[in-house]
Amino acid sequence: MFIEAIKHRAINPYIYARDKETINIMLETKKGDVETVELIFADPYDFKGDQWQYKTEQMIKTGSTHLTDYWKISIKPTYRRLRYGFQCMDNQKEKVIVTERGFYKTIPSEIGNYFCLPYLHEIDIFQAPDWVKDTVWYQIFPERFANGDSSLNPEGTLPWGSEEPSPTNFFGGDFQGVMDHLDYLVDLGINGIYFTPIFKAYSNHKYDTIDYFEIDPQFGDKETFRKLVKECHKRGIKVMLDAVFNHSGYYFQPFQDVLKNQNHSRYKDWFHIWEFPVKADGYPNYDAFGFVASMPKLDTAHPQVKEYLLDVARFWIEEFDIDGWRLDVANEVDHAFWRDFRKVVKDAKPEAYILGEIWHDSMPWLQGDQFDAVMNYPFTNSSVEFFATQQMDSQTFADSITDVLHMYPQNVNEAAFNLLDSHDTARILTMAEGNKDQIKLLYLFQLSFIGSPCIYYGDEIGITGGGDPGCRKCMEWNESKQDRELFHFIQKLIKMRQEVSAFGNCAEFRFLTVDEDVVVYQKQVEEAELIFVLNNSDQTKIIEIEGLTNRKAIELFSNQEVVVEETTVTMEAYGYKCFQLHH
Amino acid sequence: MFIEAIKHRAINPYIYARDKETINIMLETKKGDVETVELIFADPYDFKGDQWQYKTEQMIKTGSTHLTDYWKISIKPTYRRLRYGFQCMDNQKEKVIVTERGFYKTIPSEIGNYFCLPYLHEIDIFQAPDWVKDTVWYQIFPERFANGDSSLNPEGTLPWGSEEPSPTNFFGGDFQGVMDHLDYLVDLGINGIYFTPIFKAYSNHKYDTIDYFEIDPQFGDKETFRKLVKECHKRGIKVMLDAVFNHSGYYFQPFQDVLKNQNHSRYKDWFHIWEFPVKADGYPNYDAFGFVASMPKLDTAHPQVKEYLLDVARFWIEEFDIDGWRLDVANEVDHAFWRDFRKVVKDAKPEAYILGEIWHDSMPWLQGDQFDAVMNYPFTNSSVEFFATQQMDSQTFADSITDVLHMYPQNVNEAAFNLLDSHDTARILTMAEGNKDQIKLLYLFQLSFIGSPCIYYGDEIGITGGGDPGCRKCMEWNESKQDRELFHFIQKLIKMRQEVSAFGNCAEFRFLTVDEDVVVYQKQVEEAELIFVLNNSDQTKIIEIEGLTNRKAIELFSNQEVVVEETTVTMEAYGYKCFQLHH
Repeated sequence: MFIEAIKHRAINPYIYARDKETINIMLETKKGDVETVELIFADPYDFKGDQWQYKTEQMIKTGSTHLTDYWKISIKPTYRRLRYGFQCMDNQKEKVIVTERGFYKTIPSEIGNYFCLPYLHEIDIFQAPDWVKDTVWYQIFPERFANGDSSLNPEGTLPWGSEEPSPTNFFGGDFQGVMDHLDYLVDLGINGIYFTPIFKAYSNHKYDTIDYFEIDPQFGDKETFRKLVKECHKRGIKVMLDAVFNHSGYYFQPFQDVLKNQNHSRYKDWFHIWEFPVKADGYPNYDAFGFVASMPKLDTAHPQVKEYLLDVARFWIEEFDIDGWRLDVANEVDHAFWRDFRKVVKDAKPEAYILGEIWHDSMPWLQGDQFDAVMNYPFTNSSVEFFATQQMDSQTFADSITDVLHMYPQNVNEAAFNLLDSHDTARILTMAEGNKDQIKLLYLFQLSFIGSPCIYYGDEIGITGGGDPGCRKCMEWNESKQDRELFHFIQKLIKMRQEVSAFGNCAEFRFLTVDEDVVVYQKQVEEAELIFVLNNSDQTKIIEIEGLTNRKAIELFSNQEVVVEETTVTMEAYGYKCFQLHH
Repeated sequence: MFIEAIKHRAINPYIYARDKETINIMLETKKGDVETVELIFADPYDFKGDQWQYKTEQMIKTGSTHLTDYWKISIKPTYRRLRYGFQCMDNQKEKVIVTERGFYKTIPSEIGNYFCLPYLHEIDIFQAPDWVKDTVWYQIFPERFANGDSSLNPEGTLPWGSEEPSPTNFFGGDFQGVMDHLDYLVDLGINGIYFTPIFKAYSNHKYDTIDYFEIDPQFGDKETFRKLVKECHKRGIKVMLDAVFNHSGYYFQPFQDVLKNQNHSRYKDWFHIWEFPVKADGYPNYDAFGFVASMPKLDTAHPQVKEYLLDVARFWIEEFDIDGWRLDVANEVDHAFWRDFRKVVKDAKPEAYILGEIWHDSMPWLQGDQFDAVMNYPFTNSSVEFFATQQMDSQTFADSITDVLHMYPQNVNEAAFNLLDSHDTARILTMAEGNKDQIKLLYLFQLSFIGSPCIYYGDEIGITGGGDPGCRKCMEWNESKQDRELFHFIQKLIKMRQEVSAFGNCAEFRFLTVDEDVVVYQKQVEEAELIFVLNNSDQTKIIEIEGLTNRKAIELFSNQEVVVEETTVTMEAYGYKCFQLHH
């Protein structure tokens, strides 16, 4: 046995509380190396004489990549305490016992050898708000969604959609525009809106805040915003705002004060300034977002800055009843700040959603004390590279998705923000070079996956665009220019996600077959079982599907009852099927 | 290359801030599988055109076990930000690039592949108080150290040392007794005292608290305690108390109120009660420490309980100027409580030491937001099993110590509380079946190791005793019955630890040679280099020592200048040498 490849430590994601009575445990072994894994476990204080009263229970292989087999089990310990180890057996019947103190050939009697989950405290459980799991998000870049009140147009506003988006042009999108089209969004089926920044700022994207307590006048005022939130809530739509706390904008008053008064400014410690005089043109002599001089980094460990930003966090919840904060460049802000941020936000609204923008491994922020979720770029990258850009083969795709599902606790996965594209990337249809068939598969995958999916405004009607600023085109409101077929397809997927058991969140996901350009995966929750078949190629494919033969099923897209008598299914080019199995 | 055995994730202990400008990074590979590892790294925003401007730098192999090679490097990134990966090369010159998105044959250009340390925030650095690194602790079990004021003797107090300790007998140890012998402790050389509980309690061990705001009357009163702390401080001795917050005692007033008023008690939610009426004899029907009915578990998530205990934490610091808290059964209390506990304690005294009693892997408590240290049982177990009980062979010992040094960040290791035994275990001399030679090697190892060592009262003069209650004998104050030779040996080691560069904390530690029953290790800090040779057997051994040949050295125990001309050193039974090398 390759014991060097066995991975477990008594930390996330290898052990965590699933809920107030359940512990989930995971072990990794080298692919194909181990045939069975049993958990050895008991209460740490359960002794008869000197004898620790351990039990054993089989673990389940929940996923495999070309490197790794993942094994999982759920345990409900009577007294919420657990000592545990693992018994691995290979196909030669060789046994290895895995403990915190190393590897043994027989089960050690000394309890000090074992891993420990000392006590399951409800307060330490990672718990995102429940509603997030059933939310389909819609991301709005307010300057480009709809211009509903031309009286607010900033100077030089261009006629709607008259030009390509540039880093500096304005088309006058505003809150009234959003309100005018809320019923369109209800029709699509989404039930959450994520707004990129709406606070007073200089640029068209508003990531360079001037005043965190003011609405940007081009979007409306506080009363319009209050009305917008109310209209959303009336329709069952949650509202999430963008908190740009890593850096301010150049025209943020405290930074202006520093520029003016230099080392005499009372705000000089609000930033990370290397030397005076501060030089804000060209390459900055202070910490910034990247090296962007117009976005000076805030010192979020400074007590006044912290208090100011936490007041901002509280204000928009308490005064306007927003439902969540998306945190810009969240990874570059200190953990101590986010821990207090969570307290303030959950105190103001226990069911608020806290979503961090992090593009890389985010385990340190997802321990339960900081964020409810991150923008799930590992999911995004793999899905887009397989379905849209077709740079990734199906096995690599399946491996990476399997890794994504095992890199965090299940509680985290269910609240993950699964985007496909955004104001920061090219649009998916453009990445797919206009191949709508591929995009439909991508949406089918996204909307049948575990997590909280998000649609970037306009993608649903076929808007195209390259990287920033190309991806920030004006929304197309002329129905004849909208791809209504794509709209209806996504609308249907959202409905299936909401109505078909096991289609949406909170189901178990696993790949059944991975063939050239084809993936077959199963979603299961209790009795409900779905098998999805996606042919991501321009060729007809004949696919062998484990577990489908001789079973009755309804194919949900054609709504036809079928008995799959053969072991194979024929899939046309870019075809997709979803079999709902009878139990 | 066995890529399945390569271990790294952008979390502790694989990456962490060593100080406000330095990042430490570690990679694990299968033993002997990889010949060189280079770090690939740069600022995440350092681009020329599309080209990320990465550099590479060799990593150092800092330790090996029979399974694993550990590789480390320190980096000072100019802008405190880092994207990074690893280039591993084996002896066939096969290269593997290790990234967050998997393994590659050539260095990927896409920055999104790489691991990320987004920003080094000073506030997030794991920082234990500096003084702890230079502290040698002495653990006092107050009932058994010295009876200095017989007027305080509890009823039925026995003459000092007249009987074996039992779970219920009393010998009248008190604060005056400690004060009477402070100069003895100064003579020994210790500079920190860890007192097991001193608050009002029922038992002789006082782990069953009755009142957290009162001194147990058998020890003295608040004024005696205040005087004791002052007398300690006058002598440069820090004082650490034991906080028993996981559970109260049976006679704790709120628990008595629950017993009396049952589900009408205002304290009923202070505990985890399964059903009423509460049954406190025999097997409890509420959560307890283990299944000990007289130690009902406190609900530390209950706001009143939390406030009460945090007041306790603050009170003894603010009113009596204590220097640290040792936290009993710390692993069974919730993380949220400990995070707030840290804030309260550090607010009251920034340089206070927070030490958790945890016997197993403690990574979740050592992220910088909770404890400064844990009782380092992985160190204890290996050291005791090799030197004292001789159940462990030298290779297993060296492997486990190497693992101990790599399982946590270096900042954590330097503050670790390295005990050999305690009131919870048999005494080391008894575990060694009276073989003092073995114990001397054990002390030499402990006192030349990284961390904050602790001596259990009386061990230094040869007190024996089995597990609880045997290990809680009265201290021997009759000099003729003390093992003065052992005392002087330990005294000398403490002095060497404090005076000889590289002997004590904050030096690099690595094993040079591991032979049958013999270990050779090196301690190094800048120019200072020591090589220790310990023969843990009753046989003369001839040892080959890498790096010692033809070098001038002083052997510190004999204080003789030697030139080691041969490649071997002859070691008598249980012999020990420490070579201080000239540079």
